[in-house]
Amino acid sequence: MSLWGGRFSEPTDDDLRALNDSIGFDRRMYCEDIAGSIAYARAIAAVGVIAAAEAETIISGLRQVQQEFDSGAFEFTPADEDIHTAVERRLTELVGPVGGKLHTGRSRNDQVATDFRLWVMNAQDELDQHIAALQMALIEQAEGHLYTVMPGYTHLQPAQPITLAHWLMSFFWMLARDRERLADARRRTAVLPLGSGALSGTPLAINRQALAEELGFNSYSQNSLDGVSDRDFAAEMLFALALMNTHLSRLAEDIIVYSNPLFGFITLHDRYSTGSSLMPQKRNADPMELTRGKAGRLIGHLTGLLTTLKGLPSAYNKDLQEDKEALFDAVDTMHQILPVVTAIIRTLQVNPDRMRAALDEELLATELADYLVGKGMPFRQAHHVVGGVVQFAAANRLKLSQVPLDKLRELSELFDADVASVFDFDAAVARRAAPGGTAPQAVQAQIKAARQWFENHRS
Amino acid sequence: MSLWGGRFSEPTDDDLRALNDSIGFDRRMYCEDIAGSIAYARAIAAVGVIAAAEAETIISGLRQVQQEFDSGAFEFTPADEDIHTAVERRLTELVGPVGGKLHTGRSRNDQVATDFRLWVMNAQDELDQHIAALQMALIEQAEGHLYTVMPGYTHLQPAQPITLAHWLMSFFWMLARDRERLADARRRTAVLPLGSGALSGTPLAINRQALAEELGFNSYSQNSLDGVSDRDFAAEMLFALALMNTHLSRLAEDIIVYSNPLFGFITLHDRYSTGSSLMPQKRNADPMELTRGKAGRLIGHLTGLLTTLKGLPSAYNKDLQEDKEALFDAVDTMHQILPVVTAIIRTLQVNPDRMRAALDEELLATELADYLVGKGMPFRQAHHVVGGVVQFAAANRLKLSQVPLDKLRELSELFDADVASVFDFDAAVARRAAPGGTAPQAVQAQIKAARQWFENHRS
Amino acid sequence: MSLWGGRFSEPTDDDLRALNDSIGFDRRMYCEDIAGSIAYARAIAAVGVIAAAEAETIISGLRQVQQEFDSGAFEFTPADEDIHTAVERRLTELVGPVGGKLHTGRSRNDQVATDFRLWVMNAQDELDQHIAALQMALIEQAEGHLYTVMPGYTHLQPAQPITLAHWLMSFFWMLARDRERLADARRRTAVLPLGSGALSGTPLAINRQALAEELGFNSYSQNSLDGVSDRDFAAEMLFALALMNTHLSRLAEDIIVYSNPLFGFITLHDRYSTGSSLMPQKRNADPMELTRGKAGRLIGHLTGLLTTLKGLPSAYNKDLQEDKEALFDAVDTMHQILPVVTAIIRTLQVNPDRMRAALDEELLATELADYLVGKGMPFRQAHHVVGGVVQFAAANRLKLSQVPLDKLRELSELFDADVASVFDFDAAVARRAAPGGTAPQAVQAQIKAARQWFENHRS
Amino acid sequence: MSLWGGRFSEPTDDDLRALNDSIGFDRRMYCEDIAGSIAYARAIAAVGVIAAAEAETIISGLRQVQQEFDSGAFEFTPADEDIHTAVERRLTELVGPVGGKLHTGRSRNDQVATDFRLWVMNAQDELDQHIAALQMALIEQAEGHLYTVMPGYTHLQPAQPITLAHWLMSFFWMLARDRERLADARRRTAVLPLGSGALSGTPLAINRQALAEELGFNSYSQNSLDGVSDRDFAAEMLFALALMNTHLSRLAEDIIVYSNPLFGFITLHDRYSTGSSLMPQKRNADPMELTRGKAGRLIGHLTGLLTTLKGLPSAYNKDLQEDKEALFDAVDTMHQILPVVTAIIRTLQVNPDRMRAALDEELLATELADYLVGKGMPFRQAHHVVGGVVQFAAANRLKLSQVPLDKLRELSELFDADVASVFDFDAAVARRAAPGGTAPQAVQAQIKAARQWFENHRS
Repeated sequence: MSLWGGRFSEPTDDDLRALNDSIGFDRRMYCEDIAGSIAYARAIAAVGVIAAAEAETIISGLRQVQQEFDSGAFEFTPADEDIHTAVERRLTELVGPVGGKLHTGRSRNDQVATDFRLWVMNAQDELDQHIAALQMALIEQAEGHLYTVMPGYTHLQPAQPITLAHWLMSFFWMLARDRERLADARRRTAVLPLGSGALSGTPLAINRQALAEELGFNSYSQNSLDGVSDRDFAAEMLFALALMNTHLSRLAEDIIVYSNPLFGFITLHDRYSTGSSLMPQKRNADPMELTRGKAGRLIGHLTGLLTTLKGLPSAYNKDLQEDKEALFDAVDTMHQILPVVTAIIRTLQVNPDRMRAALDEELLATELADYLVGKGMPFRQAHHVVGGVVQFAAANRLKLSQVPLDKLRELSELFDADVASVFDFDAAVARRAAPGGTAPQAVQAQIKAARQWFENHRS
Repeated sequence: MSLWGGRFSEPTDDDLRALNDSIGFDRRMYCEDIAGSIAYARAIAAVGVIAAAEAETIISGLRQVQQEFDSGAFEFTPADEDIHTAVERRLTELVGPVGGKLHTGRSRNDQVATDFRLWVMNAQDELDQHIAALQMALIEQAEGHLYTVMPGYTHLQPAQPITLAHWLMSFFWMLARDRERLADARRRTAVLPLGSGALSGTPLAINRQALAEELGFNSYSQNSLDGVSDRDFAAEMLFALALMNTHLSRLAEDIIVYSNPLFGFITLHDRYSTGSSLMPQKRNADPMELTRGKAGRLIGHLTGLLTTLKGLPSAYNKDLQEDKEALFDAVDTMHQILPVVTAIIRTLQVNPDRMRAALDEELLATELADYLVGKGMPFRQAHHVVGGVVQFAAANRLKLSQVPLDKLRELSELFDADVASVFDFDAAVARRAAPGGTAPQAVQAQIKAARQWFENHRS
Repeated sequence: MSLWGGRFSEPTDDDLRALNDSIGFDRRMYCEDIAGSIAYARAIAAVGVIAAAEAETIISGLRQVQQEFDSGAFEFTPADEDIHTAVERRLTELVGPVGGKLHTGRSRNDQVATDFRLWVMNAQDELDQHIAALQMALIEQAEGHLYTVMPGYTHLQPAQPITLAHWLMSFFWMLARDRERLADARRRTAVLPLGSGALSGTPLAINRQALAEELGFNSYSQNSLDGVSDRDFAAEMLFALALMNTHLSRLAEDIIVYSNPLFGFITLHDRYSTGSSLMPQKRNADPMELTRGKAGRLIGHLTGLLTTLKGLPSAYNKDLQEDKEALFDAVDTMHQILPVVTAIIRTLQVNPDRMRAALDEELLATELADYLVGKGMPFRQAHHVVGGVVQFAAANRLKLSQVPLDKLRELSELFDADVASVFDFDAAVARRAAPGGTAPQAVQAQIKAARQWFENHRS
Repeated sequence: MSLWGGRFSEPTDDDLRALNDSIGFDRRMYCEDIAGSIAYARAIAAVGVIAAAEAETIISGLRQVQQEFDSGAFEFTPADEDIHTAVERRLTELVGPVGGKLHTGRSRNDQVATDFRLWVMNAQDELDQHIAALQMALIEQAEGHLYTVMPGYTHLQPAQPITLAHWLMSFFWMLARDRERLADARRRTAVLPLGSGALSGTPLAINRQALAEELGFNSYSQNSLDGVSDRDFAAEMLFALALMNTHLSRLAEDIIVYSNPLFGFITLHDRYSTGSSLMPQKRNADPMELTRGKAGRLIGHLTGLLTTLKGLPSAYNKDLQEDKEALFDAVDTMHQILPVVTAIIRTLQVNPDRMRAALDEELLATELADYLVGKGMPFRQAHHVVGGVVQFAAANRLKLSQVPLDKLRELSELFDADVASVFDFDAAVARRAAPGGTAPQAVQAQIKAARQWFENHRS
């Protein structure tokens, strides 16, 4: 029996039920629903709405329902349209009509919002740990590669030499922002809606602050209309995850490119590589491609929820039921991706020789300009002169270091024999020693700062 | 055993499997996979790649696999990473090593694209019928309400009187375009990729045209790189469904507003109304709200797939595996929504008295302007004069018909006693008799055109 | 002349220029570009890269460029592909070759990221003030309507009576979260990228902390690869604005519905209403419809940027140039919408009589159930009994208060003569006195909390 | 003066005007607006609503307005809120009050929909030509590279050898579908809304079919409510362009990767390459990166419009004004991108030596399996055996052809001396001769089919 059929003279249509029922996906919130109901039973007992003994009966019944769920013994009935109905129905079977007192002053509107927020808060905590693990894997890999020099690309074209450690650490900071955003979202999730009733508040003088604390919320909602229909926390969580997945998609793109044999900078461990049903030699980075692809999925979920929210009238509308599946899927997706990406970073086979072999002297053109700047030439002019050197070298298929000094001096008299010292990749890297730069000591400082950040953001 | 492990020395990681495997959702394509394999066995037998007897063995084995699926007897093993692996694995168990010949010249890349297209073609056919049913419900309701006059709104403000039939039929034409788009999408879906191999084509001289025809495709792909990675059909289908759901969301918005008691124009049948767990009187249009809300979900799916496709390198990438879940969910969603919306239209309780009561004479202000135009005043001036009449009436809380003639004549001397005839809602409706207008005879012609369209687009 | 043509033997194609150049939209960042360059000149002078006198020359030249922009005297040349080129070009015209020293150790990659962040920080500050103004308008309107009772809707169906003040204040809290999100975004925007060079950091020992402080940043980026390619701040800003616009779209929907004459709860001021070119009586809430519609635009911009970021290789890629137009447009849109919405709230004509007239006794069905609960009946049973009362009243076209007591007692013997006291809308409102409820004293407390929040979040 | 102010006692607020006015962007539809008005004047004259002489006066006035726009002499006034107001205002200045007769029976609702459709139809025609030019560039480049062998990638990992012609042609077919979709969209755009009035149709007995033909529409709308609010054509156009841009983003990704020096397969012409302000050697594929990045922008526009449409009430709502800017920008973007991409393909420098050098024998592993299949081994087993060969070769750093025969025979006795013939890239390519394959003769047939398609789809 539904919780609401009293005024209707005909039963609900089956097709409607299939469309309307949320039990297919909201059953995973059974823990949150029961926890919320136990706390609510205490709250209404505290103000005398139900007797203490009734509260005890209800709570012990709810604990039994929980056990049935935990053990897999819980049996749904066709009338269980959502998890809230299922729990209350079973509770009443177990404890009799007194179970029907639990819902006094409560509506599914504030109940479902409470359950969902609790679920999201847990998900935020769990995901935070997964992301932290990936951050630590990046730090640990980076520490071993402070001196591993590789070509740095912009526009995927050779730009300047960098170190592998620096490349790895760039993702640390993206994830740091992701965790900060997740924490900000959590703060706004942990606001208790229970006590908002259907839309106008509760007529019971319950202590909402105490209720919030018992359930692990930081505070309670200040306006009941907003309390039952605020889904900002879900949108904000989806945004935080979509942006994080976008970061991971960039890591994925790099790994996919760097593990193409013409690059050969890195090799994925056998355990994280996959093959082809047709081509026996294949060694694909499937998990990184899925990581990249799933960014689309998450951006889609975010778009979907925002679009659903757009233009809704005040207070609760059934459209809001669309909030859960997208978020559940986004969280599940992150639970799938993060451990794999972490393991891939941990087990990454790095090929420093291939990186070294890919270092082309064009990567040092900026050093050559800086050389001229050091001799007093304005940078803009130096840039232009070196452009000419590069053009000459390319036309004559020479490395930059092979351009004869007299040719250089044709382009600028400031060139001298000491120009030879410019063509040193390690020195170029070492020069970028200002904070945030790729020089080994700067990256060491960066890692120290990262570890400090990490300590300050313990899950 | 996977189809591809030969070159690897370590087994795939479990977390990776959880991320990578598609069996959780692609198992629903088992019919399509088996149909494709049966046709493929014939095709490679026809060119002597396998013997006729081998083909017979394989086909009869595949039919047995089909039976096992149909009856629910099929048992998956942990190594069944996708439906293609599961079917081939079971086939080989049933018929022995000859089963291993089936994949000759074929790749999962062209196989999965073939299966998916077949699935989508079926979905397009089924959904087309559902939409047609809704169109017919609209026509049939409209036919009973050619003379049911109601306020027509623009900006949700009273504009001009219209008929309920006209309002209903407006959705017929949206759905007509939806079905045309679906048909256009189907045409581009029905292009066979099988024979594209992994990316470069097949070395076997199979007759792709015959293969296409046997499987119900219109033609085959002209370029194997494109053949294995074209997901336009999925994007196009998602777009068609997202736009259709957007149309339904507008119908939903109207129904929600019109069934608010202050409007009271329509009442949803008890079987399609829902209540509240707290408020005993509630009578909500839940299914229409879900219909409106799910437009967000579908727009999200469309966005998601396009985003996943963006920037992919040529040919197959694992990111493409993200194509199915969104489309499956979109199709399932439409299968849920359409029958309910159709039933709601069929069982809609219309309250003509409430509509009539809502007819405010302001809806006739354009008629008043037209009256002046009929007396020779340029429309722009007439519009301005009537604006003054409306302002006067509002300030004095009069109906337009209650504004005294001498006051009218102050504003324009063209007003005369015959102005009284303007204030007739039915006459105003009847005047819109040009094609596409709301006059009963024009709507009758419209319905005739709709039935003609319908005949021309039999599912 | 471009800043980079030295190595090329042919000039850039004109069509390419049209595609590539950003001067059409990034010119509005001229203040930020010049401010960044002045600070940078000081920073490189401080470490001796340029002489103090050179810095003075450059800075005074930049100030002149600023003046030219401010006064409208600045003349662009066809070669000014972006604002950075334009400023440096003009600087060099004014001060000679020494201008070419400004770019030493700097890249457009860190320069543009710095300029853009500065622009966004300013926009965040300005928008925060606009939102605060709207919040204050809501508070002030609410204070005058603590006792204005209206029907509260869920599912747009009558639910329970609420007050207009409570409805108004619900939007205050949405905007409070919006401002919190904007502040969180600002914190992550105010991180200086300058000193990241093209991707690998700067070879100059500049004091990045001092540079950050001079320009109003809180800190500087820890990793140069991330520094040049982090666009999280833009995505986060777009998200914050898209969600805010979604909130405003809900306010808009309510206002549009409530100003339909059948509701008539509110009337928009003449100054914020618009008419029709055809229908002289029209009085449309155009600005609220645009507010609702533009939520789509902003969600689109957010989706667009995230999609652009998805799958990019490390460090700077030209795709990132797509970050600005969407954000500029989103900020401009908010600058258009917010003052209008604020003025509409301030000048809103409220029609309490229409609200009172719309109060149907069904809104009190929950009170009736609570009456039975007060007599000891479990709520679930009371809900069912009252459902029967509602059904009886509807079938007999009676108000709830008109159902005869003996009929009530047929449904439950707990009904007694005192049931008459239930049918009092003001009393029902007053009962919702727990925190967050709609009772006047609760809303008074809510407004106090809102003012407190407001004080704590001074722009 | 606005077209609608008659009923209001206060002027519109300035901030509202800034939000509401569309003249900033809809002025570009002046040709369409004037063409629509000329045809409309004839239509209402034909049924005697205005005299023939009046029509002549109006039409000649409109032609003068057109001239003023064409020559740049047209002067907007502050009251010109949109292009329709501007044109009618100027017309009335030129011809006197008779100009005020033009709007008889017409509303801005059907007028703007007509203008916008006309604009879109023109855009569709122009873009079709641009895409056709790109298709032809692909064909012509392909014809020169039927025998240019390169590594084919899936998952960006070496898969099988293909030809450059085949790779180029894969994009031809994507664009073919794009043009088909554009044509389908055009068919649904070319439906005339004029004659729908504000929402309920026109009271004038105008010949809508004749009007449609005069303006170049195929037919007219069947339902006036739908006629004024149908924006499917805009959504469909945005979808077609977003998907096309997604295709171009994949081409862009390939070109970006292939022009990285480690690949070096292709070099962009100097005219289409760009440099760096800091790094003198840089040679970036900026236009391809922008092409990739702008796919996000277009997907965003599509999402935005669909979201705006979602949940709108029937008939015209001001939200619909949001339809134009997104579409204008999408069309402008395509006008920027397409000529550049076409020129890049035309001037592409291909480096066959670098492609040849990148051919690794692993690309022939499938050939090796096919060799075993040819000797009777089931493919699945052959795949596994060759997996072992690949593993052995990798472990011993041998090319496949260097694995000693006796080692091969350890893995399968079917290996024999003739295995040497397998290691031939050109032969492997030539074997893929079935339709759609990469063999030169198959690609030649493909190009022939492409030229045929092209002839059948002349712009």
